[in-house]
Amino acid sequence: MDEKMEFEEFLEKELRLVEEKKYIRARDELLQWKDADVAEVIEEVMDEISLNAAIILFRMLPKDDSADVFAYLPTEDQLAIIDGITEREISYIIDELDFDDKIDVLEELPANVVDKILEKTPKSERRQINTFLNYPENCAGTLMTPDYISLKANMTVRDALHHIKRVGMDSETVYTCYVKDEGRHLIGIIGLRKLVISDGSALIRDLMMTDIVSINVYEDQEDAYETFRKYGYMAIPVVDRENRLVGIITMDDILEVIEEETTEDIERMAGVVDDSTASYLDTSVLHHVKNRLPWLLALMLMYIITGAIIAGFETTLKEVICLTIYMPMLMGTGGNSGSQSATLIIRSMAVGDIDLQDGWRVLWKEIRVSVLLGIILSSVNFVRVMIEQHSDPRCFLIALTVCLSTIAVVVAAKCIGSMLPMLAKKIGVDPALMASPMISSLTDMVSVTTYFLLATMLLHI
Amino acid sequence: MDEKMEFEEFLEKELRLVEEKKYIRARDELLQWKDADVAEVIEEVMDEISLNAAIILFRMLPKDDSADVFAYLPTEDQLAIIDGITEREISYIIDELDFDDKIDVLEELPANVVDKILEKTPKSERRQINTFLNYPENCAGTLMTPDYISLKANMTVRDALHHIKRVGMDSETVYTCYVKDEGRHLIGIIGLRKLVISDGSALIRDLMMTDIVSINVYEDQEDAYETFRKYGYMAIPVVDRENRLVGIITMDDILEVIEEETTEDIERMAGVVDDSTASYLDTSVLHHVKNRLPWLLALMLMYIITGAIIAGFETTLKEVICLTIYMPMLMGTGGNSGSQSATLIIRSMAVGDIDLQDGWRVLWKEIRVSVLLGIILSSVNFVRVMIEQHSDPRCFLIALTVCLSTIAVVVAAKCIGSMLPMLAKKIGVDPALMASPMISSLTDMVSVTTYFLLATMLLHI
Repeated sequence: MDEKMEFEEFLEKELRLVEEKKYIRARDELLQWKDADVAEVIEEVMDEISLNAAIILFRMLPKDDSADVFAYLPTEDQLAIIDGITEREISYIIDELDFDDKIDVLEELPANVVDKILEKTPKSERRQINTFLNYPENCAGTLMTPDYISLKANMTVRDALHHIKRVGMDSETVYTCYVKDEGRHLIGIIGLRKLVISDGSALIRDLMMTDIVSINVYEDQEDAYETFRKYGYMAIPVVDRENRLVGIITMDDILEVIEEETTEDIERMAGVVDDSTASYLDTSVLHHVKNRLPWLLALMLMYIITGAIIAGFETTLKEVICLTIYMPMLMGTGGNSGSQSATLIIRSMAVGDIDLQDGWRVLWKEIRVSVLLGIILSSVNFVRVMIEQHSDPRCFLIALTVCLSTIAVVVAAKCIGSMLPMLAKKIGVDPALMASPMISSLTDMVSVTTYFLLATMLLHI
Repeated sequence: MDEKMEFEEFLEKELRLVEEKKYIRARDELLQWKDADVAEVIEEVMDEISLNAAIILFRMLPKDDSADVFAYLPTEDQLAIIDGITEREISYIIDELDFDDKIDVLEELPANVVDKILEKTPKSERRQINTFLNYPENCAGTLMTPDYISLKANMTVRDALHHIKRVGMDSETVYTCYVKDEGRHLIGIIGLRKLVISDGSALIRDLMMTDIVSINVYEDQEDAYETFRKYGYMAIPVVDRENRLVGIITMDDILEVIEEETTEDIERMAGVVDDSTASYLDTSVLHHVKNRLPWLLALMLMYIITGAIIAGFETTLKEVICLTIYMPMLMGTGGNSGSQSATLIIRSMAVGDIDLQDGWRVLWKEIRVSVLLGIILSSVNFVRVMIEQHSDPRCFLIALTVCLSTIAVVVAAKCIGSMLPMLAKKIGVDPALMASPMISSLTDMVSVTTYFLLATMLLHI
């Protein structure tokens, strides 16, 4: 906690220094901190003061540090900085980045800038970059790095350690080494730990693990995450269709995927379409409108049906106008009950606790839960209606209508809320779309229908 | 993808074999797969066939594999298996587990079982286990493992590698080594990579990094996750108040934390209280009721206010009964608009894109977005009302009421939806509680009030 407090204090101070244009002092103090901290300061300067101030501060960093700091910045901030610095500086930074960070930045840059940067890159690396840039979005290929240690099966441990000493410093992870045959096929894996504790003259062939978990380069990044989750490895090799090793994915790259995928899920569950990874504040007003309009409009149109149902019961309504008073409560409770179930099921499916075969068990559980909840909630409602309507001679019947509707609505909402996400999954639609907004709109129809039907029957209208 | 398909096929076959009680063949085929896969098969047998079948299969595993497979099982399944095997088998498995897995299992076991297991544990380990068991839930201390390599500053690289060779195989991660002084204070860090590529006679003191990011043992696990997220390290040391090294947390332990914390957030956002980590199907009906009742009931009671507002407008309603038709649409659209904003803000705050100082920028953005959305949605509504009510002489005024209400409701909902989570954070309440259910109930009040007020004014009732 102390470290965090200390950093917060430092951040305040830095913002003050930059605001007073004391850049030199701001820079000098900055250099005492870690790259990730420096990046956070620059991010905050950009947000709180101005892009220009952030660029000035960034350009004052020692050349050696600038690429490392750059790698820690969020993509939008990286692009903003690239717009503000010279081409020479861009080239230098891109050059210094780790291969996978390099690809991430190049992917977001306009084609003409990428071309200019690639012109200055050595031919072999240029070819490799181009291959990486061509992987479809969100596939394992876009997460991987080609910087890994590769060994040969007939090397001795001594040879291998010598080889690592020579090339090791450039590789993002040397802790797992990959053994390839002549055709670049992945045939084994050996950890640096094993090399260090083994006899120098032993052959890699005899020490390596041949029972390998790998990911196909075109697999979805969510599947890559699943593989990490299941096996708990720190790095997983990526192979092409012929089982040739093309790169590795390390666990820190997966952390970002988890965050992205979770945000996407949560946003979908609230009826927000989001096709970019830009942050809330960096998304324009028009883009926010575009992201939110489709679902709002679609759901609003669904209420034409609910409206028509109410219109059909106009006589009932005219007769007992106080029925309107309890309509919002019924709709709200239905929506909330349904959303609870939908959320629990969507999340359970996402983390693998439930699959489609569990359908009946889920339904049976939801029915029992909802009957119990319905009875408790409707007894509270009974008291409420009896108090509020005690002057009406039909108060008991009205209370009965509200109570029976409550039970029916809660049970229906929980069944719809739990089954719809599973049904969505079955037909290949993202279950997250069947969350709160969709469920509420559907349960509103059920609530209104049940309520007025029961009222018509019980009150003999 | 092929590997996955292959596993699914194998799983089906295993389930069939177990169902036919061909345990020996099931076991033999199982042994060709990885521990994580074996664990998944046992999990599925438990879910799909029976606990007994799963226990039989588990007990048939070779002794050496059983602890590794056990470590991959979810906690509930581990406890179920422990209930079904002998004390001797329990002791053996617990003994073989990595230290942090051991703590996880012991934490869940009843005290008398733990005591029995500890009786057979060597004294020094028993003391260590007891210390670990006493850390409060959800703190960094419960995630860490004491299995790490510690070096001394005056060792040479050769000494260090020799030391690692001797103790290395037992440590969960030897890739980062920790340098301690006589008082067990953490004074430096050095990666195995650095050791391997450095000269054998160099001193650790001269190679180690002294600029260390560490976590306090009592810090919340969510803060530990933040630290991993910020710096991207594979392992982070955990220290006590005197900066003495007590353990390390590795990134794979953090993956589980992320999942737990995200589930908790998502559930809270849907008004579900959940105090356990048990899966949906393993939670009893009564427990589900207990988790869902508080919010359902509280929100239902809030509708007493909405009901009272409607009751106050009974004359207006009686006069223009068709107003009721558009009430669900307005409430639904208000709820959905508010939920969208609330979700975006809650998530943005959770991943650190927005903090409390951004309040005014967020509000200004939401106002512009909501005015635009309101205008689009209300023009659709205008057409709808004009068509539906064309026989009513007051149809234009009714349409105007609905349209103006739509704009007002969307704007109000987006302001409430975005500001309430920030306000919650400011006063130290979890923003996730201010999501969809809470926001919908509040916007329902606003919708009803605005709608009937406008109707009364425009229609001169």
